[in-house]
Amino acid sequence: MVQGKVFFTFTEIIFTQTKVDIIRPTFILNEKICRRNIRQMTQKAKKNNLIFRPHFKTHQSETIGNWCKETGVNKITVSSVQMAEYFANAGWTDILIAFPVNLPEIGQINNLLQKVKLHLLVESDYSTNYLNKNLAGKTGIYIKIDTGYHRTGIASNNFNEIKKILKIIRNSGNLEFTGLLTHAGHSYNCKSKEEIIKNHDDSINQLKIIKNYFYRDFPDAIISIGDTPSCSIARDFDGTDEIRPGNFIFYDVMQSYLGSCKVNDIAVALACPIVAKHPERNEIVIYGGAVHLSKEFVLNNKKEKVYGLVVKLNQNGWSEPLSDSWVSNLSQEHGIIKVSKNKKLFESLNIGEIVGLLPVHSCLAANLVNNYKTINGDIINKL
Amino acid sequence: MVQGKVFFTFTEIIFTQTKVDIIRPTFILNEKICRRNIRQMTQKAKKNNLIFRPHFKTHQSETIGNWCKETGVNKITVSSVQMAEYFANAGWTDILIAFPVNLPEIGQINNLLQKVKLHLLVESDYSTNYLNKNLAGKTGIYIKIDTGYHRTGIASNNFNEIKKILKIIRNSGNLEFTGLLTHAGHSYNCKSKEEIIKNHDDSINQLKIIKNYFYRDFPDAIISIGDTPSCSIARDFDGTDEIRPGNFIFYDVMQSYLGSCKVNDIAVALACPIVAKHPERNEIVIYGGAVHLSKEFVLNNKKEKVYGLVVKLNQNGWSEPLSDSWVSNLSQEHGIIKVSKNKKLFESLNIGEIVGLLPVHSCLAANLVNNYKTINGDIINKL
Repeated sequence: MVQGKVFFTFTEIIFTQTKVDIIRPTFILNEKICRRNIRQMTQKAKKNNLIFRPHFKTHQSETIGNWCKETGVNKITVSSVQMAEYFANAGWTDILIAFPVNLPEIGQINNLLQKVKLHLLVESDYSTNYLNKNLAGKTGIYIKIDTGYHRTGIASNNFNEIKKILKIIRNSGNLEFTGLLTHAGHSYNCKSKEEIIKNHDDSINQLKIIKNYFYRDFPDAIISIGDTPSCSIARDFDGTDEIRPGNFIFYDVMQSYLGSCKVNDIAVALACPIVAKHPERNEIVIYGGAVHLSKEFVLNNKKEKVYGLVVKLNQNGWSEPLSDSWVSNLSQEHGIIKVSKNKKLFESLNIGEIVGLLPVHSCLAANLVNNYKTINGDIINKL
Repeated sequence: MVQGKVFFTFTEIIFTQTKVDIIRPTFILNEKICRRNIRQMTQKAKKNNLIFRPHFKTHQSETIGNWCKETGVNKITVSSVQMAEYFANAGWTDILIAFPVNLPEIGQINNLLQKVKLHLLVESDYSTNYLNKNLAGKTGIYIKIDTGYHRTGIASNNFNEIKKILKIIRNSGNLEFTGLLTHAGHSYNCKSKEEIIKNHDDSINQLKIIKNYFYRDFPDAIISIGDTPSCSIARDFDGTDEIRPGNFIFYDVMQSYLGSCKVNDIAVALACPIVAKHPERNEIVIYGGAVHLSKEFVLNNKKEKVYGLVVKLNQNGWSEPLSDSWVSNLSQEHGIIKVSKNKKLFESLNIGEIVGLLPVHSCLAANLVNNYKTINGDIINKL
């Protein structure tokens, strides 16, 4: 339905230039950009001889999963047992749950094992022991290594703990060692592409040392890395066997700040109605808040918090970000946009019209909605 | 189902002391505390001769709404048209949508008008004009006044804009002036109870001046205030006609920091399984992240970010917060708990066990789940 149409029966016509009917905060997906992001990462993986096991926690959608399948993807990563169940039901047969295994879900895990080639992630002999005793069938095991992010994982120099785990695996009937896994999430704190590449190289080197150490016993163990900044920016993947980026599928403002993508690689925007204007402080208020975008922010070069960039919606998607304009604050449903001091721009944004916001963290924003709407109005269902 | 039971078939028994089966992040509600919070605020409103129009955006639940109804509540506040539709269907007949009216939803608003006594919020002559021309029936109108929060609303000294709006209302067949409304959200930045009370008094005084100014034309206009800190802490409501707190129903860590409540007034906790331990840095890793708690944080007295407090779950709910322990970081599904240097405490928290987290902002955390589980295992449905 054309947006204008809704209002023709009313005295004033409110007009948005999108092809679809938007009346409240709506998560919009540009399929063309999304498919281009998938294609580029698939090609990069092929070119570097890497297994491509994309992380599906960003989109959580069967349809978008199928776009990956079309480029040849046949292994995937998820972050929860529920997500694994969803994608198993959607026909995926090789699934890694890249989260330290949650033992209370052992019943659900054993059900999944009957359906798919499942891989779990461990980082302690305690959990490995538990799996060894309670798993109902063959399961791939990745060991999580901390290469510097310090969120979780075994410190890369803690050979003792790794040895203990490998000993359990070696003597186990069901556990099969798939390989070493890291998420070098400290790439998100890097200040330049060079630093991200250094971080990436350093991470791989730590994993290579461990791999070599255990090579005689486990020659087929792979090295698997994850974060989108490294996978997007690095050119050298020597020593790596597998990549698992997730965010690249949508990208976002944070990734564009890091240099992982350009702003026109961002495939999603939150469409939000304008509800109030405050010319005295160059602010407009939108219907669109923390419950739609999450409270994730980045700092701009003046150290101001940026919760999103602002675009104008059009027939083909959206414009470049409006210059000197950004989402400066969010509460539950309110968003505040600081608009450039360009008076013309401020005046062109009217109450009742719909603007687009590029999210700072697309994974969290996507997680907040029940489905996506493409710029052509198709509904893309998700978990 | 008793938690232990699930695991009796396995080699190792994982034991949580809750009455209910918890295997993944689960939003737990203590009905007794929640009903006590409702009762206390209802009594405070009665004692001060105030209309009590609680904000239902915090819980978004028909069942919890009914607990309010049992104490005599018959008017409610919501923050979206969708929430208004949900509670209209649940039998509520007097509903205020306390968000600057979203004009593109005029069709949905007109449908609602047929069912309930609806009140809308305006803050510009533009929106008021639009409503005047397009509303299909009698509608209560609140004018949003900015008494210092500066998120949105008409500055309290901008009599010109208020006059313009009241002129449209006076000449309108459908618009009826209910009163002046403020959300003194700057109370959240206050450093002490005294400052919150000062803020509250100052806010009411600004509204009283406006009310007096227009008293001859609108003698029945009410003064409506909202924020939970003021409603919880203030004792003097002279001049106020209505209160609309929302968060008080659950409270949270932020409110306890502000002094609006004690930690044992917090009615909700997120139950999270422990998935990893890092004794070298006194950290445990839980399955429970930004997608369960939101990324809202408060700063403790050492200026460290606190995303939640930690409790032990038991048969009657949960313990007092564990001393010197807090959620220090969150990513999508990972939570990091900094545990007190008390070695015994650290050792008592084991992989596979379930701990409770008191949320920093219960509205955002509650919004992230599809339902609540009471400590007795009942499911409380929500929007």
